[in-house]
Amino acid sequence: MSACAAAPPGYSRSMVRTAILTVTRPNAPSDGEDQTARALRQVLKGGPFVEVDYQSVPDEQALIRAKLRVWCDQGGVDLVLTTGGVGLGLRDRTPEATAEVIEREVRGLPEAMRAALAREQPLAVLSRALAGVRRSTLIVNLPATPDSARTALAAVVTALAFAVEEVRGERIVPPAT
Amino acid sequence: MSACAAAPPGYSRSMVRTAILTVTRPNAPSDGEDQTARALRQVLKGGPFVEVDYQSVPDEQALIRAKLRVWCDQGGVDLVLTTGGVGLGLRDRTPEATAEVIEREVRGLPEAMRAALAREQPLAVLSRALAGVRRSTLIVNLPATPDSARTALAAVVTALAFAVEEVRGERIVPPAT
Amino acid sequence: MSACAAAPPGYSRSMVRTAILTVTRPNAPSDGEDQTARALRQVLKGGPFVEVDYQSVPDEQALIRAKLRVWCDQGGVDLVLTTGGVGLGLRDRTPEATAEVIEREVRGLPEAMRAALAREQPLAVLSRALAGVRRSTLIVNLPATPDSARTALAAVVTALAFAVEEVRGERIVPPAT
Repeated sequence: MSACAAAPPGYSRSMVRTAILTVTRPNAPSDGEDQTARALRQVLKGGPFVEVDYQSVPDEQALIRAKLRVWCDQGGVDLVLTTGGVGLGLRDRTPEATAEVIEREVRGLPEAMRAALAREQPLAVLSRALAGVRRSTLIVNLPATPDSARTALAAVVTALAFAVEEVRGERIVPPAT
Repeated sequence: MSACAAAPPGYSRSMVRTAILTVTRPNAPSDGEDQTARALRQVLKGGPFVEVDYQSVPDEQALIRAKLRVWCDQGGVDLVLTTGGVGLGLRDRTPEATAEVIEREVRGLPEAMRAALAREQPLAVLSRALAGVRRSTLIVNLPATPDSARTALAAVVTALAFAVEEVRGERIVPPAT
Repeated sequence: MSACAAAPPGYSRSMVRTAILTVTRPNAPSDGEDQTARALRQVLKGGPFVEVDYQSVPDEQALIRAKLRVWCDQGGVDLVLTTGGVGLGLRDRTPEATAEVIEREVRGLPEAMRAALAREQPLAVLSRALAGVRRSTLIVNLPATPDSARTALAAVVTALAFAVEEVRGERIVPPAT
């Protein structure tokens, strides 16, 4: 698998190489977005996840799509977590960009995230978040705000490591155990 | 936005202009269908919802589709609630008509409605109800019977006002508050 | 309805003629798969279900699709339950084969099965199981393992008899009651 060859030195294939993509609004405060990525890192901590990239792009479908494609197609990324752009506004295009690149949808992940969020946040039912696999990379859309993103990711984080394992067809063990 | 220009005098843009479409069976008792619309009105009462139209059409896909298109494309309707035609029978065509007209699906709404219904009604898992946005109008499919329609709508009614706000990109406040 | 003409002598139209399709892995132990079918039979017992066929096919999309088509198109089968092939691996192709043959999707069934499974098994959110109708046959994808398949089927079995009734447009009564 080319993804293996592309793995940086020091990374074991038993780790889940994770990239975070923050989809930003032109007028949104930028520190709020960093806080969402920070919230995700707290949830990932202690698992087999290793952050290999972090980028932010404006909320334009073509830019989101291009970034997702690069991460999936050049190898070296097992899991992409996006934040933001999953609402009903015209500028919310993350699900559209995701739908364009995934080859197999995994509907149970957004279902479970919405169910977990809905317990504390009635508007969570409006999230159009998707999840799916392109080549050997799993893409999962998460909400924009730190609290919602944390809750959503926490609801499925255990499954994500196994999902990557299944996608890659191999077993993953947490680092340093 | 042309929808604003089309708003009747006396309607504020802060209200959710709501239309109800009852999809009828040729042999069904017509008062039963009216009771479903009445059940919906009870749930909408007290929120920012203003009923701007109510119509019933036979359960034919082309007729349902045409009605949805007119309401979405001529402006003046923020929210369309349909009742009936979401089962597994050959004459259940509301989801098909809805799928034809919506541009962006909102899967979390039917998910949440089915989850709420399933607690009291095991057959609710068979509902093929959809929800989605066409232009600046949100369409939500609801069940045929008064009890099920009431339960389904009540499960998401809080989110619907915010959904319309997000679709229109503006803030909505309840009338007379 | 031609399905009726194809019913074997002794079968009433009030029964749900059920076929089980086990999707097998080349290297998987074959008795494990039989145990999954056995687990399904325990859940079906006592309902209006009559097993009219049982077959196993390797996990190849074309073979699964062909089998589903034959059962749906030649009549005599009201309900097809598949087991296996719903994960994220490259060889998991049951949802793809199912998507190719169904005409109307019934999303609430996999939703409810995943929700029931998730209470005991966090990885259940990864199931890509589908359900849908082709002609007058309902197809439902179930997991591979006996425990998961049993839990998933038990969560929706009450609805399945009614679903078949709705698809056929007639009333079904349990046999011998």
